[in-house]
Amino acid sequence: MAERLFVALVHHPVVDKNGEPIASAVTNLDLHDIARACRTYGVGGYYVVTPLDDQQRLVHQILDHWLSGAGGRYNPERREALELVRVTPTFAGAVDDIAAATGHRPVCVATSARPRADGVTCRQVRGMLDGPAPVLLAFGTAWGLADGFMDKADHILEPIRMASAYNHLSVRSAVAILLDRLLGD
Amino acid sequence: MAERLFVALVHHPVVDKNGEPIASAVTNLDLHDIARACRTYGVGGYYVVTPLDDQQRLVHQILDHWLSGAGGRYNPERREALELVRVTPTFAGAVDDIAAATGHRPVCVATSARPRADGVTCRQVRGMLDGPAPVLLAFGTAWGLADGFMDKADHILEPIRMASAYNHLSVRSAVAILLDRLLGD
Repeated sequence: MAERLFVALVHHPVVDKNGEPIASAVTNLDLHDIARACRTYGVGGYYVVTPLDDQQRLVHQILDHWLSGAGGRYNPERREALELVRVTPTFAGAVDDIAAATGHRPVCVATSARPRADGVTCRQVRGMLDGPAPVLLAFGTAWGLADGFMDKADHILEPIRMASAYNHLSVRSAVAILLDRLLGD
Repeated sequence: MAERLFVALVHHPVVDKNGEPIASAVTNLDLHDIARACRTYGVGGYYVVTPLDDQQRLVHQILDHWLSGAGGRYNPERREALELVRVTPTFAGAVDDIAAATGHRPVCVATSARPRADGVTCRQVRGMLDGPAPVLLAFGTAWGLADGFMDKADHILEPIRMASAYNHLSVRSAVAILLDRLLGD
């Protein structure tokens, strides 16, 4: 079941502190922490979505170090995690890639720290993973996924802390917690 | 209940890749990610344990920036999270500090990625949080807490992935997942 769940870390379209649309920078630790969590839970693939050429090059440089360079020889477990990373310029590119690999267009589930009336639960997403289509879980960097992105998602997952007044997890923590809720023992 | 759980991030005594005892370096993102998770789940305090003077100074410099400097004005939520951070040279110092603040010596629960026959479950630790004493959950940096540390803990928590052959989460991810299991909705 876990291999039919995919994760996308979206760097565009996301919003900044003031709600303005931006393309955020890729960070090295987002690659490592999220890849390690994906590998630990058996996720099918981890898409890093950025339209910026220089950011795509940066990701490929980091991946080269760990997949075919000195990093992978020093720490083979890290290589095994980073093998899950795919780089795509758009979220639609990740959807197409999964559709080509699995034969099914994935159900797209966006995540958010803001409560909404129409949010789906982790239990419902677990149910989706029993269906024929894979599931692609989208996480926003910076101050979160832009509204235009949310509107196009098939579903929006309810926030990790529904009732809390303070809900400012890092995206790395949010991915780890949701993988545990969806795929944990 | 959550405010009776405390987190310690231990930089000594931990082991390196070859199992040799070391004092690891503090990393900025360990402070931020773990403080944000602790604040989101209502944890009572987050202890950064390092015996190294320069590393203690580094933590205090980072905290100054976010608690009384420009960082806290730019992002007040981040300040609210980092207010939970305490710096102690030893784990025993964290234990003493919690005992002084709460009137009870905390139950010390060490975490590990390695399965053990005598590990306690998250359900058991949740039960401890209903008792009179607070609980201090210890996480190792680098390649994990040294054996000598484990021997002195009151309990050792079973690994996050009991049955998985691959279990290489970052400490940031491990903290987030365990806080969710212990204190989640």
